[in-house]
Amino acid sequence: MASSLISRRFALSLQTNLWLSAPGCRYVSKAAPKTQLEYDYDGPSMKTSVPGPRSQALTKQLGEIQNVGAVNFFCNYEESRGNYLVDVDNNRMLDVYTQISSIPIGYNHPALLKLMANPNHLSTLVNRPALGILPPENFPDKLTESLLSVSPSGMTRVQTMACGSCSNENAYKAMFIWYRNKERGHNMPSDEDVSTCMINKAPGCPDLSILSFNGGFHGRTMGCLATTHSKAIHKLDVPSFDWPMAPFPRLQYPLEEFTRENAQEEARCLEETEDVIVKWRQKGNPVAGIVIEPIQAEGGDNHASPDFFKGLRNIARKHGCAFHVDEVQTGGGATGKYWAHEHWGMDDPADIVSFSKKLLTGGYYHKDELQADKPYRIFNTWMGDPSKNLLLAEVLNVIRRENLLEEVTRSGKALLNGLYDLQAQYPGILSRARGQGTFCAIDICDDATRNSILLKARDKGVLLGGCGDRSIPRIVGEKLKRVHLTISTIHTITRTEILYNVCFKIQGQMSL
Amino acid sequence: MASSLISRRFALSLQTNLWLSAPGCRYVSKAAPKTQLEYDYDGPSMKTSVPGPRSQALTKQLGEIQNVGAVNFFCNYEESRGNYLVDVDNNRMLDVYTQISSIPIGYNHPALLKLMANPNHLSTLVNRPALGILPPENFPDKLTESLLSVSPSGMTRVQTMACGSCSNENAYKAMFIWYRNKERGHNMPSDEDVSTCMINKAPGCPDLSILSFNGGFHGRTMGCLATTHSKAIHKLDVPSFDWPMAPFPRLQYPLEEFTRENAQEEARCLEETEDVIVKWRQKGNPVAGIVIEPIQAEGGDNHASPDFFKGLRNIARKHGCAFHVDEVQTGGGATGKYWAHEHWGMDDPADIVSFSKKLLTGGYYHKDELQADKPYRIFNTWMGDPSKNLLLAEVLNVIRRENLLEEVTRSGKALLNGLYDLQAQYPGILSRARGQGTFCAIDICDDATRNSILLKARDKGVLLGGCGDRSIPRIVGEKLKRVHLTISTIHTITRTEILYNVCFKIQGQMSL
Repeated sequence: MASSLISRRFALSLQTNLWLSAPGCRYVSKAAPKTQLEYDYDGPSMKTSVPGPRSQALTKQLGEIQNVGAVNFFCNYEESRGNYLVDVDNNRMLDVYTQISSIPIGYNHPALLKLMANPNHLSTLVNRPALGILPPENFPDKLTESLLSVSPSGMTRVQTMACGSCSNENAYKAMFIWYRNKERGHNMPSDEDVSTCMINKAPGCPDLSILSFNGGFHGRTMGCLATTHSKAIHKLDVPSFDWPMAPFPRLQYPLEEFTRENAQEEARCLEETEDVIVKWRQKGNPVAGIVIEPIQAEGGDNHASPDFFKGLRNIARKHGCAFHVDEVQTGGGATGKYWAHEHWGMDDPADIVSFSKKLLTGGYYHKDELQADKPYRIFNTWMGDPSKNLLLAEVLNVIRRENLLEEVTRSGKALLNGLYDLQAQYPGILSRARGQGTFCAIDICDDATRNSILLKARDKGVLLGGCGDRSIPRIVGEKLKRVHLTISTIHTITRTEILYNVCFKIQGQMSL
Repeated sequence: MASSLISRRFALSLQTNLWLSAPGCRYVSKAAPKTQLEYDYDGPSMKTSVPGPRSQALTKQLGEIQNVGAVNFFCNYEESRGNYLVDVDNNRMLDVYTQISSIPIGYNHPALLKLMANPNHLSTLVNRPALGILPPENFPDKLTESLLSVSPSGMTRVQTMACGSCSNENAYKAMFIWYRNKERGHNMPSDEDVSTCMINKAPGCPDLSILSFNGGFHGRTMGCLATTHSKAIHKLDVPSFDWPMAPFPRLQYPLEEFTRENAQEEARCLEETEDVIVKWRQKGNPVAGIVIEPIQAEGGDNHASPDFFKGLRNIARKHGCAFHVDEVQTGGGATGKYWAHEHWGMDDPADIVSFSKKLLTGGYYHKDELQADKPYRIFNTWMGDPSKNLLLAEVLNVIRRENLLEEVTRSGKALLNGLYDLQAQYPGILSRARGQGTFCAIDICDDATRNSILLKARDKGVLLGGCGDRSIPRIVGEKLKRVHLTISTIHTITRTEILYNVCFKIQGQMSL
């Protein structure tokens, strides 16, 4: 067993070297900048199985305070570097899960450490303002140099928020306000609007809806949760709104072999979306906005073509619905562009684009007409956090300085080639390898195998994330029982070799 | 005019000295610790009217990016100290509004600057973890030394969140989960529960409600917003839930003159609350939880007696509803105790207590039985922010070291005495002076006068906050048109002299 494993590894190693050295291969990484190499580790190093004894003891301790059922292990963030997460048992893992895709340029990046050590920023760390009423002097400049420097096409306005759920909740509110003012033909609410809203009744609190998609994930506060349809555990026992859900395309892979079938599938989904909009309008609960992820992440790394999104954008326009692209997980560079929707190639891709995670602050961009007409309609105490804007500005500097988007594109192709190869080697286990940039995924044959691979890869020093859930197909009546293994992130140092390492480690687990 | 103002000031000055020097007066402040005096300013200093020219230019600049209708002015946080907020036009104001009551111990407190300058904490600032799955090694200890060191009675469990709205949203979810498991008699959802929840339908997404109170404020995300009833501008055009609202007592002041009337008013509110619970159960939308603020802040600084809250707690028990005390604004020491509900003197005051603002991190404490039974039910990517826990631990150290809760109690009494005196001097303008600790308020005769006083006080160097809204009485059919001027905060240095200064400055505006 051990020897066969060694020989397999050797074979794979030869193969990965082949990828690296193939003449004219576009996927070979440039040498990473010197500063990165200096602070990063050179590979995983495992001392115990995970969670190790120290993690187990801390989990027990935390269990006296909180539900710890989701805790994987405890981390030593001080010792973590770049792509490598070190745990409290001194295990060092290659982390391509990156805190649910929320660490943009790796752990303890020297540029961020230097930034935070600058005494000029102490005031920003200890005086958190109420940004909506008393912003700091540099607030417009900081927004301009950070978030507005990567504005989606057609958007010059941005509102920061504390987290992804708050971003989507407020984006929904902005769409409702916009829609109602459009219905009224002006922005003056009636006395009846004002009095009924105070007791949660229409017309002040109108019967309006947000249309979302099967498998979508948009957060867990109650407005967001009404548009989330990825796993039952998120929604069970929580009251919800009567809002419509449309089907998200289920593409067949490899794409080039299923051109016609996938085009039909996308056409079917668009048609059903339009039917649902008409149906909900007829029953008196019109769709004010449509929300969708460019790649469904939590719901199983489901992709659709640019044509699908263009069609959806047109449907939104035709029916007078706002179009909200939720880039909380996809934004920040993991697809090789700052925003995944840039791959659609549209001048007017959306009315609202929300973000959080790798952008470090939550918030949303919006077109001028989606700005609330009066103050205090989109408002809360903090409205974000300038200390996070500070970090974001430096993250964007690093991404530009180190050409990380190109690096992601190059590394993502290498990773995807590795996944294709694995899939060819293990056709009974792996299928549907897919991705954009390093936002890659592959399906595993069943839940038990998926979980086994995740755990074994972790014990070998590669931290991956699973997504998708068998409960979705079951619930919507499909026969498919696919589960997914996600690899979705952007690192400082997504050097091709590191992503080979991922494939190599996955390979190592296939026959165990 | 100028001379009469001077003589009035002189008279008031004499009077405040009298308060200070009255023999046996319990309200005289101790000398503040040396470090505080050294870093604090000695009074307001105004160079321009507010907003000054620089603030106006920046507001115009920000207006290209966001709705700036709520912006008061721009701040120079670097130059702000203790109770004094400095703006970009070099105006220095005594700030008793403190970023909507979210700055616990003043600006640039030396202890917090020292903490953030410590290089040992850099890693916490640049590596924000997904706390629910990969907590840092010191997480249980940090929770124990910060939040758990001030746990409400009967609660040993706490869940951190990013902001006040997320805290309440998740507290509501915890109450719904608890209630449904109680209804089932076990925690195993049926297949129908699982399948229906994915499409937002009952029984998976059950018809359950949260009961809240007229004038209450619990946040602006869609679950929270359904329990907020303070101002129409928060709720207008946003869909809501059919959840019940009960009346919050409207006490008459001075309390000692209206003992019987106020007891009757509270009894009426309790009786209506119980009626509403029965009514909503009968119509198939039972009340899973009751949420209430110990002092309604945003809704107009409305107080009720400990007896009222005891009665409410009993009603919750009797009808099997969870009891959630929202201390987002009242928590953190401004009432002279860490939690306003401590003034009720109960061993078992609540099932859930939520917080944010002056606690710097959001979150909620809960009794054991309110812990979600499975992982990922109460969950999101960040689940709070360890860098905020770090600051909170030091804030609590400062509060203890400098005996700030005693200081708040002492200063609050002095402030309230000052408000009583002002009210006696201007009976046509001021009424209903009330407060607990420095969480004080006084009513102004009408909206225009209230706003005029706020602006004039600001131009004199005192930053106050207004709360309450005439729209509430109008909407619920009351005849009263009261508006309020709130002074609610805790500072490092709530020295009695500073609060005299507040009264003095208010006094200065009364006849202008």
